[in-house]
Amino acid sequence: SDWNIETRDGILQLEKVYTFKNYRNALAFTNRVGEVAEAEGHHPALLTEWGKVTVTWWSHKLKGLHRNDFIMAARTDEVLSV
Amino acid sequence: SDWNIETRDGILQLEKVYTFKNYRNALAFTNRVGEVAEAEGHHPALLTEWGKVTVTWWSHKLKGLHRNDFIMAARTDEVLSV
Repeated sequence: SDWNIETRDGILQLEKVYTFKNYRNALAFTNRVGEVAEAEGHHPALLTEWGKVTVTWWSHKLKGLHRNDFIMAARTDEVLSV
Repeated sequence: SDWNIETRDGILQLEKVYTFKNYRNALAFTNRVGEVAEAEGHHPALLTEWGKVTVTWWSHKLKGLHRNDFIMAARTDEVLSV
C-alpha cells in the first residue's frame, strides 16, 4: 500500500497515486473506481491525468478520516487486481 | 466562460469548475472530455468529485499556456452543449 495521509484545508485525507501507460488506461481506472464509489455511496476525488490517477478518500461529513475510508482505499487497490 | 488562469508550481494553467447534480453525471462529463482529449492528443487534468469536475488545461512541454489550450477550453464547453 502506498496510501499517504495528507492534510488539506485542515482535513485529513487518504491519498494514493496510481500510474498507467497512457491517458486511456488512467481514465478506465477512474471509471472503475467511480463504479465502486457509486455502489458504496462513498465518493472519492479522482484526479485523472496523462498516465496517472490520484485517488483521495475522506469523509465529507466528518471532515476527516473514518474507518470506511480505509476500507474504500483497500477496495480501490482491488480494482487494479481484478 | 468561467475559465480562470491559475498559476501552479510556476506554470500558467486554464481552469474551470463544472457542476453537476451527482457523481454519476460528473463522471460522465469527465469521460466525454477525456474522449475529446484523446481525439486531439492534448490531455487535461480532470478532477472528478461529487457533483463537480475541475478541468485544467496547459501545455506540458511549454510549461504554460498555448493557443491550443484556449481552443481545448472552448471545446470542453461544447461538450456540455451537445
